[in-house]
Amino acid sequence: MLAVLQMELQRLPGFRDFYPEDRAWLNYIVEYWRTTAANFGFAEYDGPTLESTDLYKKKSGEELKSQLFRFVDQGGRDVCLRPEMTPTVARLVAARERDFKKPIKWFSISPFFRFEKPQKGRLREFYQINCDLIGDNSPAADAELISLAIHLLRCFGLTERDFSVRLSNRNLWSEFLKRHDVPVDRIAEFLSVIDKLGREEESRLAEKLAALKLTLEQIHSFLATPPDQLPGFEDLLREFRWRGIEGFCELDLTIVRGLDYYSGLVFELFDRGQENRAIAGGGRYDKLIEVISDGSVDLPAAGFAIGDVVLRNFLEELPYTRALAAERMGKRALRGYIVIASETRRPEAIKLATRLRAAGLSIDFPLEAAKVAKQFQTAESLGAQYALVVGQEWPQIRLKNLSTRGESVVLETDLETNLKLEN
Amino acid sequence: MLAVLQMELQRLPGFRDFYPEDRAWLNYIVEYWRTTAANFGFAEYDGPTLESTDLYKKKSGEELKSQLFRFVDQGGRDVCLRPEMTPTVARLVAARERDFKKPIKWFSISPFFRFEKPQKGRLREFYQINCDLIGDNSPAADAELISLAIHLLRCFGLTERDFSVRLSNRNLWSEFLKRHDVPVDRIAEFLSVIDKLGREEESRLAEKLAALKLTLEQIHSFLATPPDQLPGFEDLLREFRWRGIEGFCELDLTIVRGLDYYSGLVFELFDRGQENRAIAGGGRYDKLIEVISDGSVDLPAAGFAIGDVVLRNFLEELPYTRALAAERMGKRALRGYIVIASETRRPEAIKLATRLRAAGLSIDFPLEAAKVAKQFQTAESLGAQYALVVGQEWPQIRLKNLSTRGESVVLETDLETNLKLEN
Repeated sequence: MLAVLQMELQRLPGFRDFYPEDRAWLNYIVEYWRTTAANFGFAEYDGPTLESTDLYKKKSGEELKSQLFRFVDQGGRDVCLRPEMTPTVARLVAARERDFKKPIKWFSISPFFRFEKPQKGRLREFYQINCDLIGDNSPAADAELISLAIHLLRCFGLTERDFSVRLSNRNLWSEFLKRHDVPVDRIAEFLSVIDKLGREEESRLAEKLAALKLTLEQIHSFLATPPDQLPGFEDLLREFRWRGIEGFCELDLTIVRGLDYYSGLVFELFDRGQENRAIAGGGRYDKLIEVISDGSVDLPAAGFAIGDVVLRNFLEELPYTRALAAERMGKRALRGYIVIASETRRPEAIKLATRLRAAGLSIDFPLEAAKVAKQFQTAESLGAQYALVVGQEWPQIRLKNLSTRGESVVLETDLETNLKLEN
Repeated sequence: MLAVLQMELQRLPGFRDFYPEDRAWLNYIVEYWRTTAANFGFAEYDGPTLESTDLYKKKSGEELKSQLFRFVDQGGRDVCLRPEMTPTVARLVAARERDFKKPIKWFSISPFFRFEKPQKGRLREFYQINCDLIGDNSPAADAELISLAIHLLRCFGLTERDFSVRLSNRNLWSEFLKRHDVPVDRIAEFLSVIDKLGREEESRLAEKLAALKLTLEQIHSFLATPPDQLPGFEDLLREFRWRGIEGFCELDLTIVRGLDYYSGLVFELFDRGQENRAIAGGGRYDKLIEVISDGSVDLPAAGFAIGDVVLRNFLEELPYTRALAAERMGKRALRGYIVIASETRRPEAIKLATRLRAAGLSIDFPLEAAKVAKQFQTAESLGAQYALVVGQEWPQIRLKNLSTRGESVVLETDLETNLKLEN
C-alpha cells in the first residue's frame, strides 16, 4: 500500500516540481535574463518542445544523441524532446531567412531534456537561455555575444571575482592536427580527448592520443600557446576593452565544447571558486545553417546557452547573490490583505477587493468568517504588506503597514492612491 | 532534393514555431495572466513536462488517454508529455499538504501536449493557465475562481458582450439518472452523450440514450430546469453580485466537461459571437486528491484552465482587443539606437551602450561602419523610440524622437535621465 502511494506521488527522477518557492526562483532568473537580453537588443523567439529526430542527427554529436528522449509518436514520426536549441534556431532562420535584417539577434528561454544520470547541477529537464547572433562573423559580433553572456550573470550580482570567460578556437586545433598529419575526419575523436583533459586519467588520455599518433607532451606544449595567437585576438581584445569586459576573459585551449557543429571561436563561463564548474558555453557554428538547409542558406552564426540549475546553485551559495535574490523576490509579496472585522461589511469588502485588483494591486481576503486575530495571522503568513481592516467604521478603513507596524485611517475611495504611493 | 529540404525545415504538424512576433503575442498573454492571477492572491507553481503515465490512468477519462504522447524512456519507465495540469497539482498538494495553509490558491502557465487532429484553435502543443483553489468547497470559493477566470479574459479588453460563463452541476445529472434508474457506473457514458448535444446528429444521440433506456425528450425537458435548482444557487448568485460578475453567468446543463474527475459544479467560458467556442473550462474535483493519494489526503478542490490558442484567435478577431494588444505590445520596442556618425567615436558609442544597458535601457548600435542614413533606417526597422547620434560633437549627443521627429541636444552624462523620463 505504502509503496503504491509513494510511486504515484513521485515525480520522475531528474525532473523537478516547482512549488511556489522554486517557481519564484525560476521566475527571478527568467525575468532578469529576459530584461538583460532585451536591453542588448535581442528579440525573443521560441520553438516547439518536440522536434523531428532528423534535426539532431546531422550535427549534434554522439554524446547528445545518446541522451535523447526519443520515441515514435501516434502518427509514426521519429521525434524527440528538444535536447538543445541551436538546431531549432538554425531551422527557423533557414526557413525565413529573407524576412529578417542581419544581424539577427535572438534569444529564447525554454525547457530542455537530456537522459543523463541526475546529479548536482545536472537534471533531465532544465531551463536554458539561448542567445544567437546570426549573419555577422566579425570580432564585434563575438564580443557583443560574450558581453551579453557576462551581463546575464552580472545582473544577479556576480562579479569578475566570481567567474571568468575561457576562450578557445577550434581552428587552432585543426591547424595543430594538420601540422601533425592527423586526418581531418578524426577531429571529433581528437577534440573529445581534449575535452576530457584533467577529468580523465593521464594514462587513458595518452592511450587515446597514441591512436592518433600524438603524445600528451605535444598537447601540453601546445596549450601554452600565448593568447595573441588566437585568430583575431587583437581585434577581439579591443572590442572587449570598449565593453569593459577584458578582466573577465582568458585564453584556455582545453575548451573545445562537446557539440560537433562548433567551428572557430568557442568559450565557456566558469565559476572561479572551488567548484570549478561551467555555468555557460557557446561558440561559432558558421556552417550549421547551411547543413540544416541542405545548402540553400549560408549564414555565419554564433551563440551560447546558460542553464538555470547550476546558476541557481551558484547564486544560493554566495552570500551577496543570495541576499540580492531574497531582496528582489521579497518584493513580490501580496500588496494588501483585507481583514473583515465585521461580517455585515463582507459585501463592501469583496467589492473593494474586486476594485483594487482591477486597479493592478494584489489583494486577498478570507473566504469565510474568522476571528480578527486569525485574519491578521493569515495576512502575515501570506507576506502581505498591508492589512486593510474593513468594519463598522466603513467607509473608513484602518490601514496597517505590517512591516513598520504603522497605522493610518483612510477613506475607502482613497485606497488606490495610498497603496500605490506608499511602499 | 527539395522534398528532403522541406522535411528538415519543417516543424512537426500541430506544433508551433514562435518567431519574434508570435513570441511577443505569447508573452503578452502570459504576462497579463500572471499579473491578474497574482492580483487575486494566487501563487505561481509548476510541475515537470514529463510525468508517469500512471498519473493519468485513474481519472483523466478515455478521450484524453487516447491522445497521450506516451512512450517508454531509456530507463524503462512508462511516461508521457503532460496533457493537462490537474493530476499534477493534485500530486503536488497530496505530497506536501501540511506545508500549506488552506485554502491553497495556486496557478501555473505551461505547455501541454495532446495528439489531436490539428485544426483552428486546436494544436498538439499549447499553453494553458491553470488556476486551482484547494481546501474550500464553499460558494465563495467557486465565485472567487469564476471571478478570476472572468478577469483573466477581461484583462485583455474582453467584455460581458463578448463572452459568458455557462454554469452546470454534475450532481443534477446524477440525481436525474437515479430518478430514471440508470446504474451509477454508466454516468461517464451518459455524460459523453450530453457533451455531444447539438454537435452530433439527434438520431445518433437518441440511439445512445436508448441504450441507457432514456429518450431525447426526457433530456430536453430536464435542460429547461430553472437556474434556482442549481445546488447552492442563491449563495453563488449573491457572491457573484458582490463581485459584479452576475451579468456574465448563465445556467447551461449541457456543460458537463470531458474529464472523469469532475464532481459537482462545472463551467465553461464561451465566446458569445458566431464562433460559439469554449475559451476556458473547469469545475470541482473534490475526490481527485483522495484518489491520487490513495486515501491519505482528502481535500475538496476546484480549478479551471484557459488555453492560449483560442484566446489569441479571439483577441485578434475583435477590433478593440486587437488594437489594445498592438498598443501594449508596441511599448516593448527598443528604447534607443545609437547612430555612429563618426567611426572615430565608436569606442565612446560602445561604452555608452554598455552603460545605458546596465542602467536598464534597451539599446542597440551597428556592429560595423555604415552610412548615417542606413543607420537611421535600421533604427526605424528595429522600432527604436530614439536615435542617439554620436559624432564629432561628442560629448554632445543629438537625440531624435523617431515618433514625433523632435530633436534635442543632450550631454552624454545626462542621457539616462532623459531617456528614462521622456516617453
